[in-house]
Amino acid sequence: MWRDSGKSKDEFFMQKALALAIKAQGKTSPNPLVGAVVEKGGRVIAQGFHKKAGMPHAEAEALKEAGRKARGACLYVNLEPCCHFGRTPPCVDKIISSGIKRVVMSVLDPNPLVYGRSVKILRKHNIEVRTGVLAGQAKKLNEVFFKNMRRHLPFTAVKFAQSLDGRLTDNRGNSKWITSLTARRSAKHLRQIYDAVLVGINTVLKDNPHLDAPGKVMSKIILDPHFRIERNLNIFRKYRKIIVFAGEKYKNVRKEKKLAGAEVIYLKAKNGIFSIKQILSRLYSRQITSVFVEGGAETLGRFFDAECVDKVYIFAASKIIGGKNALCSVAGRGVSDVNKAFDLNIEKVESLGRDFLITAYPKK
Amino acid sequence: MWRDSGKSKDEFFMQKALALAIKAQGKTSPNPLVGAVVEKGGRVIAQGFHKKAGMPHAEAEALKEAGRKARGACLYVNLEPCCHFGRTPPCVDKIISSGIKRVVMSVLDPNPLVYGRSVKILRKHNIEVRTGVLAGQAKKLNEVFFKNMRRHLPFTAVKFAQSLDGRLTDNRGNSKWITSLTARRSAKHLRQIYDAVLVGINTVLKDNPHLDAPGKVMSKIILDPHFRIERNLNIFRKYRKIIVFAGEKYKNVRKEKKLAGAEVIYLKAKNGIFSIKQILSRLYSRQITSVFVEGGAETLGRFFDAECVDKVYIFAASKIIGGKNALCSVAGRGVSDVNKAFDLNIEKVESLGRDFLITAYPKK
Repeated sequence: MWRDSGKSKDEFFMQKALALAIKAQGKTSPNPLVGAVVEKGGRVIAQGFHKKAGMPHAEAEALKEAGRKARGACLYVNLEPCCHFGRTPPCVDKIISSGIKRVVMSVLDPNPLVYGRSVKILRKHNIEVRTGVLAGQAKKLNEVFFKNMRRHLPFTAVKFAQSLDGRLTDNRGNSKWITSLTARRSAKHLRQIYDAVLVGINTVLKDNPHLDAPGKVMSKIILDPHFRIERNLNIFRKYRKIIVFAGEKYKNVRKEKKLAGAEVIYLKAKNGIFSIKQILSRLYSRQITSVFVEGGAETLGRFFDAECVDKVYIFAASKIIGGKNALCSVAGRGVSDVNKAFDLNIEKVESLGRDFLITAYPKK
Repeated sequence: MWRDSGKSKDEFFMQKALALAIKAQGKTSPNPLVGAVVEKGGRVIAQGFHKKAGMPHAEAEALKEAGRKARGACLYVNLEPCCHFGRTPPCVDKIISSGIKRVVMSVLDPNPLVYGRSVKILRKHNIEVRTGVLAGQAKKLNEVFFKNMRRHLPFTAVKFAQSLDGRLTDNRGNSKWITSLTARRSAKHLRQIYDAVLVGINTVLKDNPHLDAPGKVMSKIILDPHFRIERNLNIFRKYRKIIVFAGEKYKNVRKEKKLAGAEVIYLKAKNGIFSIKQILSRLYSRQITSVFVEGGAETLGRFFDAECVDKVYIFAASKIIGGKNALCSVAGRGVSDVNKAFDLNIEKVESLGRDFLITAYPKK
């Protein structure tokens, strides 16, 4: 019961809506994560969450469950309800006809088609509206969607695993395995939050990874300026969608026939380096809303160089590698001045058995 | 009052003894840190701690304060009291004559001249003795002393400051300043826990550091295989004790006259690399019980290579440097196989403003 929770009533029920929303993490793309709770007399009488694009919205699901009991009740939803026809009819209409008397939301929809409009419509129909409840949490929950709507680009998370002294490999260049099985499992779990995994061709050729995620068909993106990819690699074993970015000058090398349905996008490469911004923009136009960049060092470095990093996951193993030939985790051009380094805000440091995971965001 | 503390009586008062002991951290060398509490009727009636070598022992101080009230009381002390004449008379004699009826100690003295002997003497005099209370904390508190007594070598702590991707410098080789002022102050504070600070000559010539600590005259140790040190460096500004390890073949270059009293120890260097074990052994014979190794990368690497590391402090700045020319924090020979990496147990991760500090111990 919220009365014993020490929280305000609105925060208590919004927390429930947020907890529902996150259940579908990694499954709603290109839609946001939304949870809804119908409350009456201090009790949840119905609830719902958006499970997948094309499936009912959270509000619709909760109101359907509530039925006539919704009359006079309060609706909690972590994102402003829609007022436009998408794949499903607008939620505001359903809220109005349900008899709901108060709507509490965390954040307005960053989608310019909606932003604040639903609030106005609801108020016009004499429904009390409160916004901004647990807004920080709600924005973080939908950080992918916010980035998409505001910048029309995919959200970019980068991940790397390193020793405590920042090494990706030992002094013979071997990277299997710096971190423990526990850490590697956790990394795979993170992968499935995102639409696509992205790696450079060197990583593909050297480590021959599968780049799969348990229970999800990942889009796999390969940056391959010199078009060296081959059909017999593990990434092709299980797949639905592979996109290879190849250097423009390989346009006439029609390798993609052999790549069994993988899409090849030819792009200008300067000294073998693509424009990361161009790549992200091409991916967004293909409805890829989020990218999980897994390496190697060179590819990671290029994302930092281009300042195209929205979130950073660092898996750190509790060991020292040392030496002169062990690769560092992030290469690229790098910064020539400490004061121009890519600054981060540490969000949290979690222990993962003998290793730990640092989650960080770029400093604004 | 211990009755409200939720702890057992013995743990409660031992905690007080430990809290007293740590007050003299960095000041008692070559002696251990010891605190003592005299308890009667559930109250502290007297207390003391060892402040400096040559000054009274903790037990002596507490018993002196207690005077006649010590009769029938209980003495808490984090280390087994001494039973031999050192610079001060043996504490067991004082305990026996004081009328103390029970002695609680955390750990037996690792010094073979004492180990368990005082316990026997006390029991022979019908004093009840309990050992092992908060033994883990007590051993950690005196980790330097335990290392000294058991291995006849200084305790070696290494410290480095790096970016999140393990870089010591930017891509132009500049290391000022990766971490924030808060972190650098914290590092200076750590320095004064130890008897000596040790750096390689490259760091001295490149960064020209002072290597001082607030409120303490540090011994400064320089590893200088090619004897390149000069008198006009900042390390010579304030000093009491500087030891320079120079390559054996420079024995006839009598530079030390110009080094104004600094001691020069000539040692064999193989390809410009000293034996770290020899260096530590030489330092121990000069009553240096603990060394704080501050770099640079090459020197740090050599300590890891030689497995002469007892504790690791990593200051990590929340930034990414990237690139190919930025130095890594630990060099040396390094490990050629991930499975042979220098494994650590993370003790704690502390936030220091925007940076953080990882404290770790070698995995046993």
